[in-house]
Formats: sequence, C-alpha cells, structure tokens
Amino acid sequence: MELKEMGKRAVAAKYQLQCLTTEEKNKALCHAADALMEQARGILAANARDLERARENEMHQGLLDRLMLDQGRIQAMAQGLRQVAELPDPVGECMERFDRPNGLHIEKHRVPLGVIGIIYESRPNVTADAFALCFKAGNAVILKGGSDALASNMAITYVLQQALKDCGIGGDAVQLIGDPNRAVTMAFMRLKEYVDVLIPRGGAGLIRTVVENSTIPVIETGTGNCHIYVDKEADLEMAIPIIVNAKTQRIGVCNACESLVVHEAVREELLPRLEQALAEKQVEIRGDERVCHTLPAAVSATEEDYGREYLDYVISVKTVDSLEEAISHINRYSTHHSESIITGDARAAQQFLSQVDAACVYVNASTRFTDGFEFGFGAEIGISTQKLHARGPMGLKELTGYKYRITGSGQIRE
Amino acid sequence: MELKEMGKRAVAAKYQLQCLTTEEKNKALCHAADALMEQARGILAANARDLERARENEMHQGLLDRLMLDQGRIQAMAQGLRQVAELPDPVGECMERFDRPNGLHIEKHRVPLGVIGIIYESRPNVTADAFALCFKAGNAVILKGGSDALASNMAITYVLQQALKDCGIGGDAVQLIGDPNRAVTMAFMRLKEYVDVLIPRGGAGLIRTVVENSTIPVIETGTGNCHIYVDKEADLEMAIPIIVNAKTQRIGVCNACESLVVHEAVREELLPRLEQALAEKQVEIRGDERVCHTLPAAVSATEEDYGREYLDYVISVKTVDSLEEAISHINRYSTHHSESIITGDARAAQQFLSQVDAACVYVNASTRFTDGFEFGFGAEIGISTQKLHARGPMGLKELTGYKYRITGSGQIRE
Repeated sequence: MELKEMGKRAVAAKYQLQCLTTEEKNKALCHAADALMEQARGILAANARDLERARENEMHQGLLDRLMLDQGRIQAMAQGLRQVAELPDPVGECMERFDRPNGLHIEKHRVPLGVIGIIYESRPNVTADAFALCFKAGNAVILKGGSDALASNMAITYVLQQALKDCGIGGDAVQLIGDPNRAVTMAFMRLKEYVDVLIPRGGAGLIRTVVENSTIPVIETGTGNCHIYVDKEADLEMAIPIIVNAKTQRIGVCNACESLVVHEAVREELLPRLEQALAEKQVEIRGDERVCHTLPAAVSATEEDYGREYLDYVISVKTVDSLEEAISHINRYSTHHSESIITGDARAAQQFLSQVDAACVYVNASTRFTDGFEFGFGAEIGISTQKLHARGPMGLKELTGYKYRITGSGQIRE
Repeated sequence: MELKEMGKRAVAAKYQLQCLTTEEKNKALCHAADALMEQARGILAANARDLERARENEMHQGLLDRLMLDQGRIQAMAQGLRQVAELPDPVGECMERFDRPNGLHIEKHRVPLGVIGIIYESRPNVTADAFALCFKAGNAVILKGGSDALASNMAITYVLQQALKDCGIGGDAVQLIGDPNRAVTMAFMRLKEYVDVLIPRGGAGLIRTVVENSTIPVIETGTGNCHIYVDKEADLEMAIPIIVNAKTQRIGVCNACESLVVHEAVREELLPRLEQALAEKQVEIRGDERVCHTLPAAVSATEEDYGREYLDYVISVKTVDSLEEAISHINRYSTHHSESIITGDARAAQQFLSQVDAACVYVNASTRFTDGFEFGFGAEIGISTQKLHARGPMGLKELTGYKYRITGSGQIRE
C-alpha cells in the first residue's frame, strides 16, 4: 500500500521533472550539494548508528569500510552532484526527423525514461549519485538501498528532498523505501504500473534476484568474466603490462581480467615472464595442461575455472592453437562485458572485434577502461551486460528513451 | 532439455549470422521466398490439418479466418520476405566514434541483438515475417507460435530451414518450438542463458504472461488505449474525419482511438456532428455527464470506461475545461501508445507534444499512423509501449543493439 503511494508520487514527480529546464535542474543539483555539506553532521550521526549496528552484527571490515562515511566522503558526494550539474543535458535532443509522402512530419526526441527504480547494496554514496544521474536525465527515482545503510540513506535522501523543495521542486523526485523487509523489495520489483525501469547495482546475487523476480524492465549490470587474448602476433612487451594492469590494478571490479587466452606460438616466451610479473602481486595462475607444462608452479585449471569471475588475485589461462579457437573459447565463457586482444596483426584485430560478442571489445588495451568516466561520459550509473537498450558503460544518455512527435494537417489513414 | 539444445543451436547460429554479408542475407531471403511458393501445396496441406482440428474444436469464425492460409496468403508471405531483402541492412553502421585523451579510439557499432525469441498467437504468416526481420538484422530466432497453427508453422519453418541450408547457412537460424505444452512455453521464457530478447506478439493476456514470467529481457508490444483530444482551438471540419478514421478504419488494432477528450468550449458544436458521423458505423458513445447532456442517446460512462481498450465500435468521451486537464486525464488513463491533439493553436500543440507521455504523440492527425510501414521503416515486428530500448513502431533497426570497439596501443589504467 505504501509502495503504491510512493509509485503514484513518483509518477506525479516525473511529469513535473520532464518540464524542468536544464538550468533549473543544475541549480537544484548544486543546491543539493551545498545542503549535503551543511547537513553533514546529521548525516554522519545517522551513519554512526548504522555503523554501530553493523559492528554489533559483526560485519566484516571490508563491508564496514564501504558503509562508513566521513567528512571527505560527504564532500565527494557533494562534488559528484556538482559534476553532474556540469554535464550536458541529454533531454530534448532531436535525434531524427523525416517527412512522409502524406505530409506527416515525424521527429524522434530524446525524453526521460520516467520513473527509475534502483536497488543497491551497502555504499550510501550511491543514494546521492543515483539521484543526481536520474534527476539530471529528467527522471524521478525510487531508491531501495541496503538495510545496513538505512539510517544513512534516509538522512541523505531527506537532505536531497529538502533541497529540491527549496528550489520549488517536489521532494518526490527522489524517494527511499524505508522498509527493510524482503517482501517489500519483492513487491517493489513488481511495481510495474508506476516504475518504468529497474536498475540493480550490486553483486551477482542481487542482480539475479532482480532479473528473476522483476516484472519491470530491468537493465542488468552484470558480472564480468573478462578475457585477454594474446595472439601469435602480439608484442609481448605490450601484453605483459596490459595483463598485469587488467588483473591487478583493482581486483574487485567487473572490468578486471579474469582469464587469459594464449596462442600456442607465444606460450613459452610469454608465460614465464608473465608469471614473474604477476608474482609481485602474488597472483595465482590456474592453467591448462600446456600452461602447467611451461609453468610448473601453476595450478591445474578445471572446466569451472574458465567460467569464474574471481574478483581475486587469481587468473585462469587457456592455450589455443588459433584465433578462431580463442574467439570461440571467449564467446563460450564470456559474460559479454569486456574482452581484449593483444596483436600486431590488423586482420586478427578486426576479426576479434567483429566476432567476439561483448559490450566492449578491445585491441591492445586493458579491459579496465570499460567505465563511464574513462569513456568520457562524465558519470556512470553502471555497466550493462545485456543487449537491450544500453550496453557497456551507462551515462546520462542511457537514462533516457525517446518519443515520436508527429505533426500533421488532418491526415487520416486510407 | 530439448529447449536447451535449441538454445545452444541458436547461439551457434547467431555467431554465423553476424558474419554474413548483406548480399548473402538478401539472397537467402529471396531463395526462402521462392521456396515458400514452390512448397505452397505442402504448407496448405498442413494448414488444412490445423483448420480441421480448429473446426472440430469449434473455433470462432474470426479466428478461423486468421488461421487460414491460401495461395494468396502464401504469396503475400513470400512477397514479405522479398520486401525485407530490399530494406537497408542496419548491421555494421558506425553510430559514433570518438578519441580519448589517452589515445584510445572508441567506436560504437550497430550489431545484431543475437538470439531473439518470439511468442505469438494464431496467424501463421508471423512465422515467415518474424523470421525475415530477425534474420535480416542478423539475429537467430526461436519461434513459439500458437498451438492452433502448429502444423502450419512447422511446415513454414521447415521450408525456411531448407532454404537456408540451400544457401549454405545452417537451418538453426530459425527454429520453432513444436511442443504445445504450456510448461515448455514457460521454460522458454526463462531460457536466459541462450536468448537475448523476447518479444511477445498477441493479445493482452499473452503479453501479461510473458512480462510476468520471463527472465529474458522483454520488449513489450502492449495495448493501446489511444486518445484524441479536441482542443478549444480545433478545426472541427478536421477533427471529425480524424476521429472517425482513428475509431473505425480498423477497430481491432492497438492504434485505434478508444477515447475522446473534448474541450468544454467545443462540446456543443462538435458532439452532435460527431454523433451523426459515428452513427454511420454504429459506434456507441459512452460519455460523462456533460456529454450525455449534449447527446441524450449516449451511454453514461463509468470510471472503468476511460481505461478500456475496446477494440470495438465503442468510444468513451470525456469533457475537460483546459488543455492541462486533458493532458492530465490522458496521462492517467493512457497505455502510452499513441495520443493526438486536434488544434490550430501552435502553443497548445507544443505543450501536448511535450507533456503527454506516449510513444507517439500527434498533432492534427489520426493515431492510426503508428505503424512501421506508415513511418517508412518498410517493416514492423511490433509496436513497443515500454520505455526501454525501443518505443513505438519497431523495424529492423530496433532488432539491433550495439557494441563498443576500442583500439589502443598498449594503454593501461593508472
């Protein structure tokens, strides 16, 4: 019942938001940034309550760190809002225009999606980030954060709502579901009458639950079992730093490299040097028979290893005898996120780019660049691994849809 | 188990299809068209079996007519395939290209969606149509037709598969689920590992079932509770033929007008003339109090009437005192398909176009133009009423997605 009421309010808000000018939206974002800084004490007090409860529940240190806010993190949130204010407004762009023989003039205009639902896990900064991106793209947003961060999320949302009201915009442009009950989250995923799109942000379990249960169209921000293929024509001086970077620069992220595919012709030259480079970061290598032959210290890989997103200092390595075998292996085990080929052969590069089925396919670069900021979008709501609507890094544009505006002079259909 | 096997075959086929040239695809489509004509007798024999069973089951005459094939309808199917061959190939287009400060060159390329699932009802021609559109856009397709048309659909699919094989393309590019069991259809909706997108084509019940149960991303081709709003500045000479056309030119379609919204200022002048025009087609008018006051023969509308897609010779009529009230009424009851304003006031037209939330918003034209052919797309797989991916008429382009192709020279992330 309360969810339905939130849905109705969000729908009312979306009609108001679609009429706002870019200037009005930017002003509200900057005012919200100021408000976050001014109300930092209240937010930190709420966060302290979350942290206390989390410690009582013996939360793991890594998660505690994600949950924790301090002055610096609140400042970063405020800064994030100001950065979004500076990005170009995607709404209103005329994407296409054409005339029909009967005189109808058709224009395709970029418009907000409407009401976006976001389900996310413990990091409270997502509350401000997700609001800013949805709002700038003209959307109302209903947030469902992790229950661990409930007090923090409520405090942040309250500040954002008050800031919107100060600017003459209803606070319903951002709403937070305050009931941590799982049944409420499940009902939220079926609030199809009011919510246009649902975006889960978090681990594989959360995303699976949303995909399994939502009747609202979902943008899946999935896992990344990303591969690097070292071709027989690869420059190994280039390959090694790319692999080390993609594997170890940040291990817990979806664009990290999880699996290496090596052409037989470079196996013996590449692997010992790579082993040495990865040893500095204590990366465990799990390889097939040929890999283990070259690297006696390597662990023998099982079939299951090739399909795993380790998010850890582990990498699987597979030997292939051809580019085609590499492509076929990658397409089989890929989560269609980011895949890279290292090669000096332009034809091999083209074949890889064309035939590997992933959101982002690379030649001679680290998979770690699959990121809204690295792509120059200035922001990121997530990285889509589905084919529908958006693929790869999603910025403001990906939070919009379109409508057709058709102008006639009395046309009827014969 | 068999479904999984079909899924695997479709995935193998999608990798083959993405490598075909436009010429190869067009040749296969034309060959398939010839094959349909050559094998017409076999298809008609299969259709006769479906018709016999349907008559035994006392199928309604309208449905029997939809199920029935004859030489002309097979010819139309073949012609449809040839028309799709003539359409421009959407695959391969470079949609955007940009360079990053670190030297990465990023291109956004249009690619097939991959494997498309289509669930449809009795009309067997959809088998050939849906195949042609999916195939031309480089997609493998798994079809699940109505069980009434199973023999016809199997015969058509077999002809298409043989034609593909003749062209050196595996027959798995088009597969038909032959098991009419409901449990199989439900399992198909969850074949997420292999199917990228699911498109239901049919009535509201089918679409609801798919939306409720699918774990595969769905493109919803929904119902149309389409409105025409006659503004106070409307040219009534223009309004009446538009309303009559949108209501009666074809009543069973999603872009037919179901509800009329009339500004108080034109109520008394418009309604009696409209009643007369609609009487020729025996359209029942269900109106609010003011409408019934002007038209004593009108039926009193209930709240429920404003939300109904009649698909019949019935229209609801609502009186409003302002453009804003009209917009708000439409946004409340709309299924976000097609909405039209009749007005001579350019500002009112702009406000309506901006604020009404629908796939297609019209000024001074019939809602019946929401159609892939009328838009000049040359084809149509359906009309989307969701916000994600595609909205309004969907042609070949809407059966594609994109991938990012990134070329570097050893870039790693700092």
